[in-house]
Amino acid sequence: MSTTTPPSATTRTALDRATCEALDASDPLGSFRDRFVLPEGVIYLDGNSLGALPRHTPAHVQRVITEEWGTGLIRSWNDAGWFAKPRTVGDRIAPLIGAAEGEVVLGDSTSASLFQAVVAAVRMRPGRRVIVAERGNFPTDLYMLEAVQELLGGGEPLERRLIADDGPTLDDVLDDHVAVVVLTQVDYRTGRLHDLAEVTRRVQAAGALVVWDLCHSAGALPIDLNAAWADFAVGCTYKYLNGGPGSPSFLWAASRHHAAARPALTGWHGHARPFDFTVDYAPAPGIERFRVGTPQLLSVAGLEASLDIWDDVDLELLREKSLRLTELFLSLVDARLAERWGIVSVTPRESSRRGSQVSLRHDDGYAVMQALIERGVIGDFRAPDLIRFGFTPLYTSYADVWDAVDVLHDVLETEVWREPRFARRGTVT
Amino acid sequence: MSTTTPPSATTRTALDRATCEALDASDPLGSFRDRFVLPEGVIYLDGNSLGALPRHTPAHVQRVITEEWGTGLIRSWNDAGWFAKPRTVGDRIAPLIGAAEGEVVLGDSTSASLFQAVVAAVRMRPGRRVIVAERGNFPTDLYMLEAVQELLGGGEPLERRLIADDGPTLDDVLDDHVAVVVLTQVDYRTGRLHDLAEVTRRVQAAGALVVWDLCHSAGALPIDLNAAWADFAVGCTYKYLNGGPGSPSFLWAASRHHAAARPALTGWHGHARPFDFTVDYAPAPGIERFRVGTPQLLSVAGLEASLDIWDDVDLELLREKSLRLTELFLSLVDARLAERWGIVSVTPRESSRRGSQVSLRHDDGYAVMQALIERGVIGDFRAPDLIRFGFTPLYTSYADVWDAVDVLHDVLETEVWREPRFARRGTVT
Repeated sequence: MSTTTPPSATTRTALDRATCEALDASDPLGSFRDRFVLPEGVIYLDGNSLGALPRHTPAHVQRVITEEWGTGLIRSWNDAGWFAKPRTVGDRIAPLIGAAEGEVVLGDSTSASLFQAVVAAVRMRPGRRVIVAERGNFPTDLYMLEAVQELLGGGEPLERRLIADDGPTLDDVLDDHVAVVVLTQVDYRTGRLHDLAEVTRRVQAAGALVVWDLCHSAGALPIDLNAAWADFAVGCTYKYLNGGPGSPSFLWAASRHHAAARPALTGWHGHARPFDFTVDYAPAPGIERFRVGTPQLLSVAGLEASLDIWDDVDLELLREKSLRLTELFLSLVDARLAERWGIVSVTPRESSRRGSQVSLRHDDGYAVMQALIERGVIGDFRAPDLIRFGFTPLYTSYADVWDAVDVLHDVLETEVWREPRFARRGTVT
Repeated sequence: MSTTTPPSATTRTALDRATCEALDASDPLGSFRDRFVLPEGVIYLDGNSLGALPRHTPAHVQRVITEEWGTGLIRSWNDAGWFAKPRTVGDRIAPLIGAAEGEVVLGDSTSASLFQAVVAAVRMRPGRRVIVAERGNFPTDLYMLEAVQELLGGGEPLERRLIADDGPTLDDVLDDHVAVVVLTQVDYRTGRLHDLAEVTRRVQAAGALVVWDLCHSAGALPIDLNAAWADFAVGCTYKYLNGGPGSPSFLWAASRHHAAARPALTGWHGHARPFDFTVDYAPAPGIERFRVGTPQLLSVAGLEASLDIWDDVDLELLREKSLRLTELFLSLVDARLAERWGIVSVTPRESSRRGSQVSLRHDDGYAVMQALIERGVIGDFRAPDLIRFGFTPLYTSYADVWDAVDVLHDVLETEVWREPRFARRGTVT
């Protein structure tokens, strides 16, 4: 990765690399970068898919393994607070999403947590038999709704209505048959950001409940679920929250719903008295009723370490830097790539409608991204034609943005992406 | 922990500690003990609840964190084989349970895997509306059946019939309404072992499918699911398999059922083409259709390390030692404790009906177990009155058994368990 301004950086924007370096020098979040391990020669713009490794995570997980497991053994269920982890770690996520203590609990995968939330919500609107979702949702949300339809549709079928940013709109499909609306706050492909409070209000005005998927917004921007009077939310912790590969999902339910929400998966960790070993299920009184089985504690340990960093983050500063990073990227793309190669962003230009990522359209996006990755700029590809760049304010610098555009310019200029080794094949994550 | 014969070891059995030491010296599995970390001063007889830490696990997990996550970042989904882990690690579990390659996949918790298996099985017997389970099952199995009843019972209710070792029996309840029978091979309290092949045959003779819960048998004894022509099985990996706290569950489905089995939870990792990001769900062709969301890879790493040990284990030798350990324990209890304190085992004496644990009944079992733990003998308590001892042939020695009975003798003799600090309170794991 070039660290000085390379020859191709002759741009038509007023910006130059020195300006970016100056922005980094005065960045109030600049010191967070040192708290992460970033491999040499890599500009990592895929923290929206898998967050980078916090520097102290290895030691923390090691301690959990050797001390809590190795020495504490079974005693750690009580002594190290293992049994309570899904709740106590949930309480540490709460401030990041505008939740109160006792409203957030860890789950297994986001898919499973979404299932828990949607089934509970549908059951709270008996007689209403429609679920609304977005065609552009990350597919697992749609797939899990098929599960909900199949499982809850035995008596009277559940209908799924799909909306999209280019229509049909929410207003087109909302009526008094709608039980639940499932929405992703930030679209995983375009980066489009919903107005959480405004959309929640419209859903609830129709008498429905809203389930928010925060996978691409938790840790990317401030979220205030309680201020929005939202109903349910789920999210993942391995993207912006840097909890580690596959770290556990979380589920939020507004406390006003706890007593009425019947969990779909009635496992023993969600029981009111799990160690009475009774024959019949009785849900725990609060958010813990959404627990299922034994939490995967090594993965929980990874998440706990990353939350040590989040304890120190000012989310308003985070959002400010996030928007500056994406704005800088969009400006540089416009100035250096748009006209010459017809590169178009599918990400909203209005900052109030943008998450912390930018996606560009390119007919050979897969090959272009492979060529970028070979040069150390790691983003990802989303079928059929999007190259996606995530900007994680805790460890992405303004100079990274400059250099990434520079490398992209070079990849397009040299047409290196046309080389056969970059052709698409096999599994793509 | 005493390492020489203590004064209280005046017994009426022919055995003495020297005999136990001799058994250890000639134990063909003796060398495995060095591959585990066992804390000083502890006799660990709770490996049936949480297995001990393999010595090389910390380094393995560390490598996954620093190299695969820290350096590989998102690239490790392909380069380190992350995406395939639930299947490739499942293939390493397969030989332990008599499964073929491609028949085992990792899940989240056992509860969730059981849900997946039971829903799939019930759907394969349309028209039959009864699920049979054991009253003595670990409760989460029963609780999850309530979830199945609630979710699949919308059209026509599903009935749950409970059997027990003291009746009603399987034959009492089997008829042509029964869709699925859910059985735990080794009872978590009594250690009673079902004859897997014989019971499977009886269930299938009634036209039903069987779902086996192997939580207390996988890694405790040889299992041959395919020889028994079983249908589905689930199990946990953090007990005898030593995968670490909350390490992922596994699900086995006979390959003859793969094409017909519709998963309950239709997440994107179980999709036929997950990276096509299509709107509609289509199940993967094989066992991977039972996957749900992103696997918790730090916990998977712990499991992988423990399977390195299992690769080297002869399961027939394991079973032989397991039975010798439990037989020794039962003999010593009979000889030294039974008559004087009325201590009774609830575990079958016939070795063919016994898993790898022994449970003793004591009215003040909770306090007795707390007193034992204080003296370094770690078993556990199961309400209302059982003290439970698990014997893990890879790291439990014959001398451990001698010493444990010796400490139990001492706890009963001195009546130390009557001290108020051992009284039951709060959460008990």
